[in-house]
Amino acid sequence: MEHMRFFFLFFLGALALLVTWPHFPSLSTTQLLDCNNLSSDRCSDHYFRFFRPNFLKKNPSPTTRRRDHYNDTPRHPLDPLTIHEFNQVRSILSHYPLLKSSSYALNSVVLEEPPKKLVKQWKSGDPLFPRKAIVTVRVNAASTLLLTVDLSTQQVTRHEVGPVSGYPTMTVEDMIGARNAPLKSREFNRTITARGVHMADLACLPVSSGWYGNIKEEQSTRLIKVQCYSSEGTANFYMRPIEGLTVLVNMDRQEVVSISDKGRNIPIPNGIDTDYRYSVQKLNGKLNLLNPISLEQAKGPSFTVDGNLVRWANWEFHLKPDPRAGIVISQAKVRDPETSELREVMYKGFTSELFVPYMDPTDAWYFKTYMDAGEYGFGLQAMSLDPLNDCPRNAYYMDGVFAAADGKPYVRPNMICVFESYAGDIAWRHVECPITDFQITEARPKVTLVVRMAAAVANYDYIMDWEFQTDGLIRPKVGLSGILMVKGTPYDHTNQIPPQEYLYGTLLSENVIGVIHDHFITYRLDMDIDGDDANSFVKVNIKRHQTSPEEDSPRRSYLKAVRNVAKTEKDAEIKLKLYDPSEFHVVNPNKKTKVGNPVGYKLVPGGTAASLLDAEDPPQKRAAFTNNQMWVTPYNESEQWAGGMFVYQSQGDDTLQVWANRDREIENKDIVVWYTIGFHHIPCQEDYPVMPTVSSSFDLKPVNFFERNPILRMPPTFQDDLPVCKPHDQPEI
Amino acid sequence: MEHMRFFFLFFLGALALLVTWPHFPSLSTTQLLDCNNLSSDRCSDHYFRFFRPNFLKKNPSPTTRRRDHYNDTPRHPLDPLTIHEFNQVRSILSHYPLLKSSSYALNSVVLEEPPKKLVKQWKSGDPLFPRKAIVTVRVNAASTLLLTVDLSTQQVTRHEVGPVSGYPTMTVEDMIGARNAPLKSREFNRTITARGVHMADLACLPVSSGWYGNIKEEQSTRLIKVQCYSSEGTANFYMRPIEGLTVLVNMDRQEVVSISDKGRNIPIPNGIDTDYRYSVQKLNGKLNLLNPISLEQAKGPSFTVDGNLVRWANWEFHLKPDPRAGIVISQAKVRDPETSELREVMYKGFTSELFVPYMDPTDAWYFKTYMDAGEYGFGLQAMSLDPLNDCPRNAYYMDGVFAAADGKPYVRPNMICVFESYAGDIAWRHVECPITDFQITEARPKVTLVVRMAAAVANYDYIMDWEFQTDGLIRPKVGLSGILMVKGTPYDHTNQIPPQEYLYGTLLSENVIGVIHDHFITYRLDMDIDGDDANSFVKVNIKRHQTSPEEDSPRRSYLKAVRNVAKTEKDAEIKLKLYDPSEFHVVNPNKKTKVGNPVGYKLVPGGTAASLLDAEDPPQKRAAFTNNQMWVTPYNESEQWAGGMFVYQSQGDDTLQVWANRDREIENKDIVVWYTIGFHHIPCQEDYPVMPTVSSSFDLKPVNFFERNPILRMPPTFQDDLPVCKPHDQPEI
Repeated sequence: MEHMRFFFLFFLGALALLVTWPHFPSLSTTQLLDCNNLSSDRCSDHYFRFFRPNFLKKNPSPTTRRRDHYNDTPRHPLDPLTIHEFNQVRSILSHYPLLKSSSYALNSVVLEEPPKKLVKQWKSGDPLFPRKAIVTVRVNAASTLLLTVDLSTQQVTRHEVGPVSGYPTMTVEDMIGARNAPLKSREFNRTITARGVHMADLACLPVSSGWYGNIKEEQSTRLIKVQCYSSEGTANFYMRPIEGLTVLVNMDRQEVVSISDKGRNIPIPNGIDTDYRYSVQKLNGKLNLLNPISLEQAKGPSFTVDGNLVRWANWEFHLKPDPRAGIVISQAKVRDPETSELREVMYKGFTSELFVPYMDPTDAWYFKTYMDAGEYGFGLQAMSLDPLNDCPRNAYYMDGVFAAADGKPYVRPNMICVFESYAGDIAWRHVECPITDFQITEARPKVTLVVRMAAAVANYDYIMDWEFQTDGLIRPKVGLSGILMVKGTPYDHTNQIPPQEYLYGTLLSENVIGVIHDHFITYRLDMDIDGDDANSFVKVNIKRHQTSPEEDSPRRSYLKAVRNVAKTEKDAEIKLKLYDPSEFHVVNPNKKTKVGNPVGYKLVPGGTAASLLDAEDPPQKRAAFTNNQMWVTPYNESEQWAGGMFVYQSQGDDTLQVWANRDREIENKDIVVWYTIGFHHIPCQEDYPVMPTVSSSFDLKPVNFFERNPILRMPPTFQDDLPVCKPHDQPEI
Repeated sequence: MEHMRFFFLFFLGALALLVTWPHFPSLSTTQLLDCNNLSSDRCSDHYFRFFRPNFLKKNPSPTTRRRDHYNDTPRHPLDPLTIHEFNQVRSILSHYPLLKSSSYALNSVVLEEPPKKLVKQWKSGDPLFPRKAIVTVRVNAASTLLLTVDLSTQQVTRHEVGPVSGYPTMTVEDMIGARNAPLKSREFNRTITARGVHMADLACLPVSSGWYGNIKEEQSTRLIKVQCYSSEGTANFYMRPIEGLTVLVNMDRQEVVSISDKGRNIPIPNGIDTDYRYSVQKLNGKLNLLNPISLEQAKGPSFTVDGNLVRWANWEFHLKPDPRAGIVISQAKVRDPETSELREVMYKGFTSELFVPYMDPTDAWYFKTYMDAGEYGFGLQAMSLDPLNDCPRNAYYMDGVFAAADGKPYVRPNMICVFESYAGDIAWRHVECPITDFQITEARPKVTLVVRMAAAVANYDYIMDWEFQTDGLIRPKVGLSGILMVKGTPYDHTNQIPPQEYLYGTLLSENVIGVIHDHFITYRLDMDIDGDDANSFVKVNIKRHQTSPEEDSPRRSYLKAVRNVAKTEKDAEIKLKLYDPSEFHVVNPNKKTKVGNPVGYKLVPGGTAASLLDAEDPPQKRAAFTNNQMWVTPYNESEQWAGGMFVYQSQGDDTLQVWANRDREIENKDIVVWYTIGFHHIPCQEDYPVMPTVSSSFDLKPVNFFERNPILRMPPTFQDDLPVCKPHDQPEI
C-alpha cells in the first residue's frame, strides 16, 4: 500500500487520471478483511463491478498502516474483544450444549463491560478483570438467546431475555440473504422482467418492516421487506426505483412470504446524470476549481492513541468501535488547569438509537420507519473512511474488529478517524479600543479534536462526530449526507399534478419524488460529573419577572433564573420551548467551587426537530424515546438502548419511555441523560442525486465545573509556529 | 513590517519570547491611522500604557500590505466613500449655510447608495452614478440634520427627519468626551478617592442610557451614563467595578447632570489573576500545549478581491465596511453549474441592530439595554483583526475608511478578513456496502469562504462571520467572546447569600457577580432570488395528519408539508415553534425549475432564544424588532435599521414592529427578510475573567434554486494535492 504510484495526465484542460495500483486493496493484504469472512457472494465479480473506477480517488492513510490485529491484546477493562478473544468465544460456544446440535447465528458478540464501579476504580497497571463477551444468538431460526461467555473460566451463562418483543440486530448475512431471497421467486422474476429491467441490473435493498400490530405475519415471524431498483446506466440505482413492488420475506427462512406489486403504471425514472462517482463526471470548464487547502501539522498531531486511550490537550478518553452504536466514548476526563487533576465528565456516551420515519402511508412506504442502530447496526454499517476526503491529513484511523454471523472475527479497516481540526475560528478574544484607554489585542485560535465515523445505512450516510474543545466543551454532531430514498411517480412536471393530489414529498426530477421524512438520533450520556456517581439534574428556568412597586425600577420586567432540581424521571422529561426556556445542568451537588457553586456541565441543544407523530402510532410507540428531547434516568446497566434491547419488529414494550414511566428518583444519584437531535427533511432538488451534508449538534458545556476560564493561559499563534510549505509538484521551497 | 525579526528562546520548558520590533506598529506607518485623526487624548502616553506587552504577540498580515488609501477611487456603485470623497464632503459641508456659523459634529458620513434599480442594471465598465454621501450632523449640540451631499454637483439636500425620537449613533469623540466628563466633577473625584481608587487607575465606560419615559432629563437631553472601574493590578478593569456609582452626563455639553452613589458598602473585587494578556501569564507546565496546526494553501488562496468585489468558487459579492452595520454584503450571486450563469441571491445583507438587555432592575443596572449598532456603531467598534489568531494564514484583510466627528477620514486597518476555511468536514459523501453489491466510496471535503469582522463594544467581542459554501448556502454566524459586564457584591461565597436574596446572576469569584443578560442580533436580508424584484415568502408548515380509513394504512399518522404563501406582513411575523414547525422559503414565483418548482432559498434557524421581556417594557418597545424571530417587509429604502434611524434614546416609534404594523402586501413583491439570533446568557465561572466563544448561526439555503446538487462534480482531494511542509525552524524538508 505504501508504494503505490499515481500517474496523473492532464489533457486539454480536462483531468484524466490513470492509476496503477498493485492489487485490489481488499485483496492486497494478508490481514483479515470483510471478504474473507462474509458470504462469498460479497466477493464475487459482481461485487467489484462498480469498484474499479473508484481506484482513481483512493488515497492512502498516511498516519496508519493496517494493523496486524492477530496480536492485539486488551490493555484496558473497556477495550473491545480482540481477534483472539472472538475466536475463543466461537470455540467455547461451539461446545455449549444449547447450541451444539443446533444451527445458529451470532447476531452480536461484544465485550461485556465489567461493572462500572470496578472500571472506575481500575488504574493503569492494575490487572484486567476477567474478560467476558455478551453474545446474542439466534438458534434454529426460531429463538433468541442472550449469553455471557466468560473467557477465563470458559463458562457460558444464559440470561433471561424476558417477555419483550422484537428480534436482535440483523447480521450482514441476514440482510444479504433477505435481499437475495426474491430471486428464488418465479413471480418476482416475472414482475422484474415485465417492468423491463434486466436481472443483471437489479439492485435490491432489505428494508426493516417495522411492526404495526395488525398484520398477521408480524406476530411470530422475523420479517423483512425487499424493494428493488434498476442500476442500468447508473451506479446510483436509488434514483431508479421499481415503484410499488414490495416483497415480504421471512428473514429466518430467507423465503418470500408475499409480493405486493402496485406500481406497474409508474415508470422507472431514467437515472440520467445521477451517477455521482468522480470518475464518470464530465467537468464543466466554467466551474471555478479551488486551489488545494489542507490542515498542516509539520510537527505532527498533538494527540496520542495508546491502544484505545486517546489523549489530547487537556482531554483523555477511551474510544472503541461498537457494531451497534458505532463510536463509544468512555471515561472522558478533562484536566483542570488549576490543580492539574484529571476530572471525570462522562462515564460513557454513544448513539443509542435512531428513528427515521418516512411520511407516506401508502402500501410501499408506510413501513419505512427505520431504527438504524438496533435494526441494521450503526457500527456494522460504518464503512472504511476515505483519507483526505472523509478526514483530513494527519488523521489517525482506528479499525473495527467485529464478529460475523458464524462468529469469525473480521476487520473493518479505518472505521473511525481521530484528527485535530482548525477552521480559522477563535477560542476567545478581547480587543480594547477606542472607548477605553487600553490598547490590547488578545485572540486565541480554536483547535479541537474530532472523533469521526460515517455509517452508510444503505442510501443515507450519517457522519457522526464527537468534538472535544480545550475549554471543556464536548460537541456530538450529526451530518446527514448520502442519497435520498425516492419514490417513482408518473409525473414529470408539477403542472401535471391534480390540485387535490398530495405527493408526500417534492418532485425532484422527472418521475422522482423525494419523500418527506424525519431523522432522530438519540444519545445516551452517562454523565459522572467530577468522578462521583451522585449527580443531580437541574433545570434552570428563565422566567419573566414583572417588577413590583417595591423594586422601584424604571423597568417593567426582567428575566430571572429559577433553579429546579429534578426529583424523579417525570421532572426531567424535557420538551424544549423557545418561550419557556431553561438551561439543563447536570451537577455534582457534593462538590462545589471555591465560591460555592455546584460543579456541573450543561446540555445545550442546537437546532433540532420534534417527533410530531401520534403517540399511539405503532412506529412512534416503538420509537417513544423521541417523545421528549431530553430524559434523565437513574443508571441501570440494562438500559443502554433507547428503543429496547431487541428493536427489530419491537412493539414498544422496552423503550426509554417505558423505563421512565416508573418515575424513579434521580436526585443525587448516578444518572444518565438522553438527548435526541431531530431533523425534518422536506427534500429539495439540491438533494438530487446526492445530498450536500446537513448538520446539527448539541453541546455538553462546563458550567461552574472549572473555577475560571480553563484556556485563559493558552498561547496565541506566532508567525514562527507556521510551517513552510510548497506544492507537491514544486521541486524546492 | 516585512523585515521584522523574531528571536525565540526556549528556556527550561517554559516559553520565553523576546521580540525586536522596529517601531510601534501604529507609529511606524505613513498612512492614515486612528491616532492621526482622533482626539490627542487617545494618542497620549496613557494610551500606550498597556500597549507594550502586546507586541509580544503581534503578527504581520502576510497577504496584504497597508494600502495607500489616498489613491483609492470608487469602481463599483456600492463602493464606500474614499478618502478623497470624505474630504470633498467635509469641504462642501463647511460652506453649507446651515453649518457655516455653527459648531457641529458629523455622526455619520457614508455613501448614499444609488437606487437599487439602477445598481442592479449597472455592469462592470459602465460609468458610475453620481456619487453622493448621506451625512448625519449634530448642530450646536441641539439638533440633528440628515443631509445628502452630491459630490458631482456639490449640492447639499436636507431631508426631513420627521418627528421620530432618538439621537444618531454616538461618535467616538462623544464616547470619550462622556467618559472624561466626570473627571471635571469635584464630587466624583471625592467619591473615587473615598472608594480607595487612585485616579491613575480609574477606567470609565460610557454606557448608553436607554429611555424609560419617566425620567425628567430624558425628554430633551442627549444623556449618557458613566460607570467606572479600577485597573489597579490588572488590565482587565472590567472585573473591578466601583459598584453602584453611576454618573449621568449630558452628552452634548459633556457635563455631569447627577451622580448616584449607592454602593459604598460593596468592596471592589480584587482582580487577582484576571489579566488575560499572554504576556503576563504564568504558564502551568502540566498544560499540554498543542503542536502548531494551520490551514495551508501552497498554491495560494482561491478567491480574489477586486476593489470591493470578492470572487470565490461559484460566488461573487460586493463587500464593504460600514461604520454602523460593520460588514455589508451586497449583490451576492452564485454561478449555476448547469448554465454557468451568475444568479442573484441577495441584494444586501447586514447586521441591522443588536439588543442586549441586562436582567437587573436596580439603580446601577436597569438601563443596561444596549443597542450596539445604532448606539455605538458596530463598525466603529470593529478594531483591527489579529493575523493568525483572529483569522488564519492566507487571509485577505480589508481596511475600513471612516470619518471622524470633524469629517476627517481615518483608516481602520485590517477591519475585515476574508479567508478560506476547511475544518476537515465533508461537503457530501456516499459509501456503498455491505448490503448492496456496489463498492463505492465517494467523499468531498468541505471548503468554505468566510468574511469576518470582530466588534468589541467595550467589554463584549462580537465575532461576525458570513460563510459562503459551494453548495449555495450562506451562513451568517455570531460568536460572542470578550469580557463580562460584572457587578460588585459584598459576598465572597454563596453560603453568605440569604435564601430570599436574588443576585440577578451568578457569583463568579469573590465579590463578583456575572449578571444575566440576553443578546439579540437582527439581520436585514434583502433577498432578490434569481435577480427578480418579485419574490414571495412561503411558510411550509409541517403538520401531523391522522390517516383516514380511506387511506387504508397501517399508520395512524404522518407529517404533511402545507405551503402557505404570506399575503401581508402579519402573515410573516414568525415565532418559531418546535411543535408547530415550518420551513421558511423565499421564492421567486415567476421562475420555475424544469420540473416546475418555484426557485427559492430557505432561511433555516439555528439555536436561538426569544426575548421574554414585557412587550410594553420601554427597552422592549425600543427593541420591538425582537418581538418575533422573523419578519418580512416590502422593500423600502428608508427601512434599514430595525430599531429606527436614530436609536440612541429612541422611544420605539420607528422600529420594524411599527413599520410592519401597517401590514403591507408582500406577495410577489420586492421583499426584505429580517431574522434575529438570540442568546440567553446566565454567566458561569468559565466566563471569568474572559469568555470562551459561544456561537450561533442561521442558514440561507437553496431550495429548488438549482436543478440539482450544484457540487456533484467537485473533485475529491488527491494525495498529490497536498503540500509538502516543514516546521519553520527545520532547515530542510
